[in-house]
Amino acid sequence: MDANTEIIVLNVGILWLLISTILVFLMQGGFLALEVGLSEKKNVVNVAVKNLTDAGLSILLYWAIGFGLMYGATESGIIGTDNFLPDIGQGGGDLAIAFIFQAVFASTAVTILSGAVAGRMKFSSYLWVVVLISGFIYPIYGHWVWNGGWLAERGFIDFAGSTVVHSVGGWVALAALIIIGARKGRFNEDGSVNDMPASDLPLAMFGVVILWFGWFGFNGGSQLAWFTVTDQGTLEASSAVPGIVANTLIGGAAGLVVALFLGWLVSGYPTAGAIGNGTLAGLVAVTANCQAIDASSAVIIGGIGGAIAIGVEQLLLRLKIDDVVGAIPVHLAAGIWGTLAFGIFAQEQYLAADGGRGGQIMVQLLGIGAAAVWTFGVTFVALWLLNKVAPLRVSEEEEEMGLNAEHGLLPVGTTATAPSAAAPVGAMD
Amino acid sequence: MDANTEIIVLNVGILWLLISTILVFLMQGGFLALEVGLSEKKNVVNVAVKNLTDAGLSILLYWAIGFGLMYGATESGIIGTDNFLPDIGQGGGDLAIAFIFQAVFASTAVTILSGAVAGRMKFSSYLWVVVLISGFIYPIYGHWVWNGGWLAERGFIDFAGSTVVHSVGGWVALAALIIIGARKGRFNEDGSVNDMPASDLPLAMFGVVILWFGWFGFNGGSQLAWFTVTDQGTLEASSAVPGIVANTLIGGAAGLVVALFLGWLVSGYPTAGAIGNGTLAGLVAVTANCQAIDASSAVIIGGIGGAIAIGVEQLLLRLKIDDVVGAIPVHLAAGIWGTLAFGIFAQEQYLAADGGRGGQIMVQLLGIGAAAVWTFGVTFVALWLLNKVAPLRVSEEEEEMGLNAEHGLLPVGTTATAPSAAAPVGAMD
Amino acid sequence: MDANTEIIVLNVGILWLLISTILVFLMQGGFLALEVGLSEKKNVVNVAVKNLTDAGLSILLYWAIGFGLMYGATESGIIGTDNFLPDIGQGGGDLAIAFIFQAVFASTAVTILSGAVAGRMKFSSYLWVVVLISGFIYPIYGHWVWNGGWLAERGFIDFAGSTVVHSVGGWVALAALIIIGARKGRFNEDGSVNDMPASDLPLAMFGVVILWFGWFGFNGGSQLAWFTVTDQGTLEASSAVPGIVANTLIGGAAGLVVALFLGWLVSGYPTAGAIGNGTLAGLVAVTANCQAIDASSAVIIGGIGGAIAIGVEQLLLRLKIDDVVGAIPVHLAAGIWGTLAFGIFAQEQYLAADGGRGGQIMVQLLGIGAAAVWTFGVTFVALWLLNKVAPLRVSEEEEEMGLNAEHGLLPVGTTATAPSAAAPVGAMD
Repeated sequence: MDANTEIIVLNVGILWLLISTILVFLMQGGFLALEVGLSEKKNVVNVAVKNLTDAGLSILLYWAIGFGLMYGATESGIIGTDNFLPDIGQGGGDLAIAFIFQAVFASTAVTILSGAVAGRMKFSSYLWVVVLISGFIYPIYGHWVWNGGWLAERGFIDFAGSTVVHSVGGWVALAALIIIGARKGRFNEDGSVNDMPASDLPLAMFGVVILWFGWFGFNGGSQLAWFTVTDQGTLEASSAVPGIVANTLIGGAAGLVVALFLGWLVSGYPTAGAIGNGTLAGLVAVTANCQAIDASSAVIIGGIGGAIAIGVEQLLLRLKIDDVVGAIPVHLAAGIWGTLAFGIFAQEQYLAADGGRGGQIMVQLLGIGAAAVWTFGVTFVALWLLNKVAPLRVSEEEEEMGLNAEHGLLPVGTTATAPSAAAPVGAMD
Repeated sequence: MDANTEIIVLNVGILWLLISTILVFLMQGGFLALEVGLSEKKNVVNVAVKNLTDAGLSILLYWAIGFGLMYGATESGIIGTDNFLPDIGQGGGDLAIAFIFQAVFASTAVTILSGAVAGRMKFSSYLWVVVLISGFIYPIYGHWVWNGGWLAERGFIDFAGSTVVHSVGGWVALAALIIIGARKGRFNEDGSVNDMPASDLPLAMFGVVILWFGWFGFNGGSQLAWFTVTDQGTLEASSAVPGIVANTLIGGAAGLVVALFLGWLVSGYPTAGAIGNGTLAGLVAVTANCQAIDASSAVIIGGIGGAIAIGVEQLLLRLKIDDVVGAIPVHLAAGIWGTLAFGIFAQEQYLAADGGRGGQIMVQLLGIGAAAVWTFGVTFVALWLLNKVAPLRVSEEEEEMGLNAEHGLLPVGTTATAPSAAAPVGAMD
Repeated sequence: MDANTEIIVLNVGILWLLISTILVFLMQGGFLALEVGLSEKKNVVNVAVKNLTDAGLSILLYWAIGFGLMYGATESGIIGTDNFLPDIGQGGGDLAIAFIFQAVFASTAVTILSGAVAGRMKFSSYLWVVVLISGFIYPIYGHWVWNGGWLAERGFIDFAGSTVVHSVGGWVALAALIIIGARKGRFNEDGSVNDMPASDLPLAMFGVVILWFGWFGFNGGSQLAWFTVTDQGTLEASSAVPGIVANTLIGGAAGLVVALFLGWLVSGYPTAGAIGNGTLAGLVAVTANCQAIDASSAVIIGGIGGAIAIGVEQLLLRLKIDDVVGAIPVHLAAGIWGTLAFGIFAQEQYLAADGGRGGQIMVQLLGIGAAAVWTFGVTFVALWLLNKVAPLRVSEEEEEMGLNAEHGLLPVGTTATAPSAAAPVGAMD
């Protein structure tokens, strides 16, 4: 290739990365719609405000600290040490694209928590957890896998983040759920479960479509290029990205269909929750491996992902863990499965660990375990301590009233009759 | 062009096709919002679940069967015979992009039905119709037009699918509507019509914006390339796609404005329904011809499309055909018009049939007629038979209660007070 | 560069411009969701219909007249004089992309008004204002700045339209708000303010995400190219666009975070309104300068934008100006700030006026002042006259009942029991 061809090849890749970044960004809207739709009406404003706020806060924090910890020069494969407050902006297109693409991934990992703890976690506490994840937990685990850290060195592969993004978000959610406990009235002493009505299931389904849409960038962008250049410096005839997107399309579809019928069997109904979370679990499941499998494998991996979502949801109910939106079944459980599935299904040439397929599977388990220990461990300790200083949970009265009141809204069903100084705060019909 | 330039030209085209694919995929969300917004509140979950489910199911079916029937090697111009369960996924970018682009088109054709039959078609029956369309009816008609089949050989042109996608979806909807009948209480014996309140008109308008957004990929992607390479193998100075997108923008706008004022005249109000369906009808109308017309023609074709939507909506009410979202006026009627309009408005160099413009118009009518006979015919017979075996329509009580109950939700206005084992099913506030 | 490389470089730029156009188009959906969410329930259909209608109408008008006035050959730097009803469509990719990119910008400027005047402006009057803005006011100011007009000649820089789009839209809104007055019951004689409940704050937050998403195209597309070609005709190694998008991401985030905490201080709550409008104000603020600043400046400019939104919102309440969605704080005030901020923060090489940074700041103030005089002036006079002929405001009864009734809907809480001929008009649950 001549110099101009090289520039074109590189920058068409950056164009695709930018498009992917923009698609991944919209997943914030998908999570917002999904989580609002699945929450009780008295909590929807709180859920929406948490979603939008965590986007803004995590982007600033990732710029200030996270990006450097994750992509700075490594210290012993453990932590990045430079590139804090990077001077991107005008000029320096390569640094800029690297930052924004990674920043929207960090925001995605962060926002997974918000729906799980809907209905009882204080807004101010939530902000602290956002700081913890985007400024510390996520970037460090990410460094291990995606910036040549100790897991990468052992050949751990997580293409677009079944573990790095989804399981990490899921582990954080699990730690928070255990410390904060179930919504009041969710579980009865006899083990039965009370229904807490979702505010708007069609909105949740719409959120699933938006997430799926964004996922094409999430997975497709993780190729980090549009063209494939061989080791000899020649151009491959066609881009590898469409195949990745095809697996993403098919994996989500398979998760949907399997969860639809399995959920129908379990609950007696073809429920909105089953198809929604089945789709997402299928997508999470192919995220680690979509660059390395063919379409039939995507059907199997996505389908098993959908089945896992249904199974783990039932398990959580038995364990009396109250995950409002299904973040654990979808992001944690299917994320573990997808990461493992790389070892099982990836075509030979994609294996990176010593010891062939068996060795790869062991390394995948190591990476999964490391995420568990690091993410769940640090979050659990940090939240346990934080909870001592400033309780994470709202008071019983506030929970009863609904968390919309945290944002200046009147509880549903009441009306202010007197003129109010709180006008700019707003209210809802 | 040298080899690298050829690779770049081809793959920038694939990049545009991928972006278009992703845009078209989002139309699922647009249809979901539109149809939920126009349906009665007691049916919205059913409508949303049908929309998401048909996306997943149709993608798997199109992968297993449909793609091969449509794009496999032809048998006598009638049917494709290979490429079933194609081994896309990693590698093979060309096959992957061909599959995903076509798969999202198939899903679009399928989902048109869901809104028309809202409020009375059983979920399980709906699944059978999805199988029928995405695995059989759509791919075969598509083969005739887009894979060099017998209609293509005669010079039938339907650029992005006014007929292949929209009319096909519309004919399926019409057959279903005739067999299944109107919602209970919709029509009175004296010919007057009872209003069935839409649940959320702003959501429907939002859905129209999403659909318009996706349509830029639907029409623009149908160019199947970004650059134009001449017969001599040289590159044209500029891409033809922006002109196609411009016509799509203008055609939708013209449909909106004409339907706004015509609807205002007819009903006395500038209604949400008129501008929404007017926009969509304008878009459907330019879909067959947007590569071959200038902007003034787009104004005329789109504007007439908007007028047709208003007129056919009135006609259906007279015929007591109860099309909840206006699928027939928008997709069937404007689709026929747009296909015919190619013959009337296309610039000379785009005509493909023998016999000049007159010949082209005749061939366009042949293609329209073939869609009617094949799609309406097969669907009508199949649904009529299916209806004998397993009634397509829910019981009167179920219809009264609302189809949300099919998905485990309590009827609006009732509450479960006792703890319920159905917790994972969910409910709505 | 050889001829093919030149074609590729140019047309990859057009591809990015097309993607940007499509993203900006979706901002119509973002504004719809935002404004519907912040409006009272009895007005939401009216707000949604206005949003969709202004998109269609403004596109046709901009095609017929506006594009020519703005981008036609100049008469003395004041007004464009040709290119009316341009023959875009098939062929002529360059003209087509120029038109559609500019048309969606024009639509954005127009739609800013609709939310501000929610709840009392007649639909028919609104249509006249749309004609005025998209066919006259916006294109002429745009000509001065973006087509080499008299402000451009003096070195006025407004990269993506903090003033050209946002302040212009804001000035129009301010003129309309002054003439039309506050919603009935909004302000009390003692200066206190009555809360008018927002219909759906989560929807408004979702709208903010959609707008942010579209803004990446709004700002990134304004580079008008993907590759940078030096004066010597050589290709720069990397695109400048990712840096622009990074500043857009960071500017919005900074606006969000500052407005969150400042609003919390002012009102006692972390409100949905504060984070939503803070984000948008941050985005508006970096719009004029995102090509010329580094990331730290984006934090400062966006953050100050967020603070301004909170401050101006309070100011408007004191002045008893009833801006339902915050169009003045967000689009006008932050737009002025961002335009000025170019003079203060832009890196040296981007300054274009005589007299260094001081001279640039003076020219920026001149451009801001010209927008005020032209846009506010013409709109005020035109609406004042129009108001004499055909009152802009609905009657007191209509306002009380809600503007949804303008579109054939029954007032909230009433039901038609008798069969109605108005069936096609629709109603809402």
